[in-house]
Amino acid sequence: MNQDTVSDGIANTNSTPVRFADVLGAADRIRSFVHRTPVLTCAAISERIGCNVFFKCENFQKSGAFKFRGAVNSVAQLSEADLASGVVTHSSGNHAGALALAARIFGAKAHIVMPSNSSEIKKSAVREYGGLITECEPTLASRMSEAARIQSETGAVLIPPFDHPHVIAGQGTAALELIEQVPELDVIVSPIGGGGLMSGTCLAARALRPSMRIVGAEPVGADDAFRSKKAGKFIPQLAPNTVADGLRTSLGQLTWPFIRDEVDEILLADDLETIAAMKFFWERTKVIIEPSCAVPLAAILRHYSEENSAGSRPEVPQNIGIIISGGNVDLQALPWGK
Amino acid sequence: MNQDTVSDGIANTNSTPVRFADVLGAADRIRSFVHRTPVLTCAAISERIGCNVFFKCENFQKSGAFKFRGAVNSVAQLSEADLASGVVTHSSGNHAGALALAARIFGAKAHIVMPSNSSEIKKSAVREYGGLITECEPTLASRMSEAARIQSETGAVLIPPFDHPHVIAGQGTAALELIEQVPELDVIVSPIGGGGLMSGTCLAARALRPSMRIVGAEPVGADDAFRSKKAGKFIPQLAPNTVADGLRTSLGQLTWPFIRDEVDEILLADDLETIAAMKFFWERTKVIIEPSCAVPLAAILRHYSEENSAGSRPEVPQNIGIIISGGNVDLQALPWGK
Repeated sequence: MNQDTVSDGIANTNSTPVRFADVLGAADRIRSFVHRTPVLTCAAISERIGCNVFFKCENFQKSGAFKFRGAVNSVAQLSEADLASGVVTHSSGNHAGALALAARIFGAKAHIVMPSNSSEIKKSAVREYGGLITECEPTLASRMSEAARIQSETGAVLIPPFDHPHVIAGQGTAALELIEQVPELDVIVSPIGGGGLMSGTCLAARALRPSMRIVGAEPVGADDAFRSKKAGKFIPQLAPNTVADGLRTSLGQLTWPFIRDEVDEILLADDLETIAAMKFFWERTKVIIEPSCAVPLAAILRHYSEENSAGSRPEVPQNIGIIISGGNVDLQALPWGK
Repeated sequence: MNQDTVSDGIANTNSTPVRFADVLGAADRIRSFVHRTPVLTCAAISERIGCNVFFKCENFQKSGAFKFRGAVNSVAQLSEADLASGVVTHSSGNHAGALALAARIFGAKAHIVMPSNSSEIKKSAVREYGGLITECEPTLASRMSEAARIQSETGAVLIPPFDHPHVIAGQGTAALELIEQVPELDVIVSPIGGGGLMSGTCLAARALRPSMRIVGAEPVGADDAFRSKKAGKFIPQLAPNTVADGLRTSLGQLTWPFIRDEVDEILLADDLETIAAMKFFWERTKVIIEPSCAVPLAAILRHYSEENSAGSRPEVPQNIGIIISGGNVDLQALPWGK
């Protein structure tokens, strides 16, 4: 695709430092490092919603989540000197493993600051990819101060989990691929945590299919993007309470304008709906997804399925695409219990 | 493929009523009803075993298991009169759901005799496919007498779970597809329960790649095929004790000769190895397999991996294919506990 001939489509965010051309550049840059993940359909789910539902399986991505796209797009743009100093981030989730793996590919050290209460499975993923874990108190302040200390002591480059142009551009390649794989999508749905995946999705969808409806999904217990959009101003997420551990964060300075200006609608799901959707997906597709990407499925089920309509059922589109963000689940502690 | 030009390759079982031509016939007959399931690889697993391991994902097959191939191949060959009388079987496992679905496709009633202690998830699959469940005592005698009663009362045709030429021919299409998808296989591995899948695998592998090594896998707690082969005579499986619920049965009259004459080797795995292999597979591939198909993976890991060699490590082939037989797991009762 010729970058020069494709309009950005983003009218209201000309000030954004990341554009569709950056997504295309990321796609070229990371092509040899990422999996072009498959798109899965499931008759039982499509039947229940009443249209074709396409799942872009980033749970099959390297490191088990879309996060690897943004991480490797960031690390690949570092100078030799930066790579020699290494990278640092703070994360209790999928960005930690993704950055450790991306750094290993480029021969760089990855310092990962993780809260002491991070799950053992996330820690062991980081270790396996050769990441150097520094434990900290489970507070944002402690995470940031530890990361800053490592930065100043080692010269490592901070690669934040979402609020960075290279990260957003990398995440946008997931939607770019999905739209290439299923051009006839009417609606595209991504979960919203920090907003990196959603921002990248907006860039790809607006440029390639301006009429496509862009839908975000959030847990009821961490609905900061929903509330921010409604209020027309950024509202941080305080005290999140949701099983969807990847969606507890606030939006960022770069991601909030995308949510505000480009996302058409944000749908919500509560944790019971999310857990039921996750189990339904496992049972029917035999594919493992984590709670954070069961949120979009649950929200779509709630929104479109007859059971939840109460007389106000919206018109069901023909083709919905959902980005399955990851599959890293602690199998010893499944949310539906024993 | 021209059936006339392909030798059966089965030298010692000329008396068998099922031949490679029947597998080819089954493939044609069931093509529009079954999924051509994908073949999956996993770098972490291939690395651990030290060669390329290809998984034929019959867990993605309709009804969640390879059993649908044999069931639909059987039902498709019934006369109009037989279809009007319906079909009957006794099964606590995947054959139950598979036959119910196959019968529904052909507009036939499916009477499924299930032991009263069958798992709720298997029962609900049968119900969902429109099967008519008759509960019986959890003994083979009770299962058979109930099925016989239904046969005589309704005229329904008995479709047994494995010891039937049409069933074996249908199951053989899984290996047929795998060998088409990955022609360079050196070794093909199937689990052995009643032996239907393994017999079909022998037919396809011997005909298409006579030099391919055919390996069976069994749980230590239900190793009747292993013991039968060693003794050179059929030994029934009494008191099986294994988590691999699909592999607890004895061999059949039709399947035993294939095990005796065509299988090169049977490898064993104990339940702890099977559960560990199953969890490892889930974690690394994000794909759900049931214990019965973790047995081949566990057996291969035990056989080829360094950790289990104790100095007698066999030569590792270049390309191993494993048939993943199913993905129907009760997610409320996972074998690794909470």
